[in-house]
Amino acid sequence: MANSKYEYVKAFEQPDLLLPNTWIVVRIDGRGFHKFSDKYTFEKPNDRRALDLMNAAAMKVMSELPDIFIAYGISDEYSFVFHKSCTLFERRSSKLVTTIVSTFTAYYVHLWSNFFPDLPLTAPLPSFDGRAVQYPSVQNLRDYMSWRQVDCHINNLYNTTFWALIQNGGMDAKTAEKELAGSLAADKNEILFSRFKINYNNEPEMYKKGSIVFRDYELVEPGTVELEDDESAKTVEEAALSKTQAEKDRKRKAKARITVQHVDMIKDEFWERRPWLLSNKPGKVPKEI
Amino acid sequence: MANSKYEYVKAFEQPDLLLPNTWIVVRIDGRGFHKFSDKYTFEKPNDRRALDLMNAAAMKVMSELPDIFIAYGISDEYSFVFHKSCTLFERRSSKLVTTIVSTFTAYYVHLWSNFFPDLPLTAPLPSFDGRAVQYPSVQNLRDYMSWRQVDCHINNLYNTTFWALIQNGGMDAKTAEKELAGSLAADKNEILFSRFKINYNNEPEMYKKGSIVFRDYELVEPGTVELEDDESAKTVEEAALSKTQAEKDRKRKAKARITVQHVDMIKDEFWERRPWLLSNKPGKVPKEI
Amino acid sequence: MANSKYEYVKAFEQPDLLLPNTWIVVRIDGRGFHKFSDKYTFEKPNDRRALDLMNAAAMKVMSELPDIFIAYGISDEYSFVFHKSCTLFERRSSKLVTTIVSTFTAYYVHLWSNFFPDLPLTAPLPSFDGRAVQYPSVQNLRDYMSWRQVDCHINNLYNTTFWALIQNGGMDAKTAEKELAGSLAADKNEILFSRFKINYNNEPEMYKKGSIVFRDYELVEPGTVELEDDESAKTVEEAALSKTQAEKDRKRKAKARITVQHVDMIKDEFWERRPWLLSNKPGKVPKEI
Amino acid sequence: MANSKYEYVKAFEQPDLLLPNTWIVVRIDGRGFHKFSDKYTFEKPNDRRALDLMNAAAMKVMSELPDIFIAYGISDEYSFVFHKSCTLFERRSSKLVTTIVSTFTAYYVHLWSNFFPDLPLTAPLPSFDGRAVQYPSVQNLRDYMSWRQVDCHINNLYNTTFWALIQNGGMDAKTAEKELAGSLAADKNEILFSRFKINYNNEPEMYKKGSIVFRDYELVEPGTVELEDDESAKTVEEAALSKTQAEKDRKRKAKARITVQHVDMIKDEFWERRPWLLSNKPGKVPKEI
Repeated sequence: MANSKYEYVKAFEQPDLLLPNTWIVVRIDGRGFHKFSDKYTFEKPNDRRALDLMNAAAMKVMSELPDIFIAYGISDEYSFVFHKSCTLFERRSSKLVTTIVSTFTAYYVHLWSNFFPDLPLTAPLPSFDGRAVQYPSVQNLRDYMSWRQVDCHINNLYNTTFWALIQNGGMDAKTAEKELAGSLAADKNEILFSRFKINYNNEPEMYKKGSIVFRDYELVEPGTVELEDDESAKTVEEAALSKTQAEKDRKRKAKARITVQHVDMIKDEFWERRPWLLSNKPGKVPKEI
Repeated sequence: MANSKYEYVKAFEQPDLLLPNTWIVVRIDGRGFHKFSDKYTFEKPNDRRALDLMNAAAMKVMSELPDIFIAYGISDEYSFVFHKSCTLFERRSSKLVTTIVSTFTAYYVHLWSNFFPDLPLTAPLPSFDGRAVQYPSVQNLRDYMSWRQVDCHINNLYNTTFWALIQNGGMDAKTAEKELAGSLAADKNEILFSRFKINYNNEPEMYKKGSIVFRDYELVEPGTVELEDDESAKTVEEAALSKTQAEKDRKRKAKARITVQHVDMIKDEFWERRPWLLSNKPGKVPKEI
Repeated sequence: MANSKYEYVKAFEQPDLLLPNTWIVVRIDGRGFHKFSDKYTFEKPNDRRALDLMNAAAMKVMSELPDIFIAYGISDEYSFVFHKSCTLFERRSSKLVTTIVSTFTAYYVHLWSNFFPDLPLTAPLPSFDGRAVQYPSVQNLRDYMSWRQVDCHINNLYNTTFWALIQNGGMDAKTAEKELAGSLAADKNEILFSRFKINYNNEPEMYKKGSIVFRDYELVEPGTVELEDDESAKTVEEAALSKTQAEKDRKRKAKARITVQHVDMIKDEFWERRPWLLSNKPGKVPKEI
Repeated sequence: MANSKYEYVKAFEQPDLLLPNTWIVVRIDGRGFHKFSDKYTFEKPNDRRALDLMNAAAMKVMSELPDIFIAYGISDEYSFVFHKSCTLFERRSSKLVTTIVSTFTAYYVHLWSNFFPDLPLTAPLPSFDGRAVQYPSVQNLRDYMSWRQVDCHINNLYNTTFWALIQNGGMDAKTAEKELAGSLAADKNEILFSRFKINYNNEPEMYKKGSIVFRDYELVEPGTVELEDDESAKTVEEAALSKTQAEKDRKRKAKARITVQHVDMIKDEFWERRPWLLSNKPGKVPKEI
């Protein structure tokens, strides 16, 4: 029984290649996590175990997909970034997105019991959706990252105040919501401090800044490393050379330790001291102490 | 800190709506399952536990996503089909695909220990990629399904013979491969029967036909049910009516038992006796015996 | 000087293949034709010369692109339809659309002086934009055509009444607009008849029905010709046969006379009496009288 | 007769927005121009009239679409470039491409008789197809432009030698082709000089370099003008300011003279002395002499 009669159906698959030389962000989001966090009675406003689980899964994704050079997580969402020179899966959008979503989900489910040992998972299980977005310039990419980190701040300040009003102030959700309607950041800081003796600045960095995941190399002094030129127009020989180089880089990357940090990435400093992030060239492995 | 400065980056998200009135097939594939099946020493040519796990995960996907009306699995791949009238997630391609991939992965990992109680999963974990394909006509969709089922047959006949030559015939892989090069179906049947007393027709239906998953209603006599007309051009009133109807349908579907069967779906009979599949209207629930 | 250094830029061209087995409608629209029609003082509500020029250009497009089997024009827009089996330019969207737009524009400009002998064209010249839309089913396609023809009717009834109020009733545009705000079709018919002795039914069919362009074969009695089956799943031999047939069909099509008619295409009759339109098989050439 | 019943067909139009912050190149090509140039017996290897007509049409396109800041033409093709900040037609691909193709075609047909006064156009008329390509970085865009200009050089050197062998050397096409098979640039230069006393360097610049079309401002000394920063992340106030600025810029652009030049644009100098090209800010209008 030959299959040729039906094989024409393959022609209906349409290509979905992302544009070369763009930064690819794959953002995944928990599906129905409001309900899910209720089911497992996540702590409010932040559940440390749930965030640690997100981070653990993200680190596994990064270690299985070395083409990802940075990831950023807040709440039940995570953004994974491929370098603009990435050619993984020929830059097929659905392949890149589903691989990340599937790998993340696998580890989230598998590692769940490490973080919630007393709360076995039951159906419906947690799941995530995802999408790819392309950013042409470094500025666009950094603005995307800043956008997420500002969002983290805005949401966390709101949630911290909202839950303080409920947990410490005895309000119900509706009243707390009304109390905060139209309030500015300064107002919320003031509520926290004057009513509940909470100094927002002393809240855990993880909650205020979110989680940045990347391969860890030695920090450099700003200005001492030249940023890459655009390398699109390499000659054939240069491209061949850089293939060997790419192999070496891959190995150095594989050895690098993946770290999670909760720092500001909106200012230039974060990027200037870690030039290896945007250059996609591995840095110096820090000496073990 | 307002976020407006960075929000422009949202404009880089590009819409990926699938065309209305097309049948949507989401096919997922195990990533690196050749290596994966070695790691857990899957039985050859078919590992019953692995296939049962695939089917269990697929049934969970279908029960969480009632818009899927049929699914078909062979080996480490599964195809899920949305009816052409489906409007789930506004038919956004990446949302549909990632939701299926993530849900499937979650159950695959979670249910693993039910099927492989003695083989705990370790990193790297199993994962799946996926893509959506659109088919404009019922004929195209049925040809897609037939394509996959013919592929199942071709692969299984080959694998059954290949592994018989190795496991029963004492050949190594290379010799077996050479032996089968250019052989026709009849040749393979003959090898199986004359050398190993294996009648291919008696092999398990699951291996020969793959696994079809769908909601089970009473079979009908072919010709007794009229197939749907194209309903695209309904009046507003009809559309409103059908909204109530859709709600009723959804409930009846939710109650229907999801079944896995290993039968021929290439011939018309499969579809004619189950008119509810292509009509997307729930059939009669069979009486419990 | 080899060009290899720069050729990588070709990789940025992204494929834009339309889905197989869908009906392709390319609709073009005059750019800024409100201003354009003022510049050449087109007659209101309809300028016969301008519509005849549109039709002449459309006929030229159809005769240069035999893959188009029907076209429909109203005002400064024209829709050209490719059969769902069309493989012209591998169904590349931009190639199909730009070829039609360019060919149409060339003839519009070239034939202008035939229809407006006393009004030479000057810059800025007339131009058209265009887009391709895919319709999966015959019903969708017919609904598209009906949509345009209903639009023609609605607009023409409005414009006829509006300009009667101005030209025969002495109103200014604002007053006429106010007079018609919220009016039903019956109201407009009544205004035309009672105030201006205009029986809308007697208006020229071209204005009321728009212009349908197609290759003219003998009409058939409804029900005497079987409509095509879906032919997607042809065997290889059948496909080869049909290649020869396709060549014959092409020649018969090339000989067929292209006609412009102003008739109803919403009802079934139009399509039933011209089965060759949707079947994409040439009909019988009518005997010359 | 309300149209609501059919309006659902509008939902089948799929968005085709190009990615923000990318340079958009629309390249158009003459359809069947080999045959077309035979029909009107274009001179070989270059027909001055035909190239002048292409350039005249391109200048008209640029003057009607001020968002295009540079265009480049060789033979029967023309590339039009929109600045990466362009928001014309919301960056809808088909709208941008068809507008250029249609406007170009209109002027090509309309201006034909100025350049070929003795050769009236007859059907089939000349037409053009087109496509849009996105380039994320300035380097990519410049490499695209360099690619086309190198192609111009390679083709023109070949064609000049090929036609010298035929027109001056008495060869037929086949023999000339064989003679040139595998020859290097130096070989062709040598053939031209030693056999036909043609110094390729003295050939007209238009043939060797192609035609670059842009708005003409005063050249600047390289290094005296700072190139723009990435402006994606402007605050709302800055964006508002720049709206007024944009209006001013538009007016200054409208006044600028559009020029055609035949110079090298591969080296940096072309771009450095004309910083207004990539900055999209109008330069100083040169004093009239």
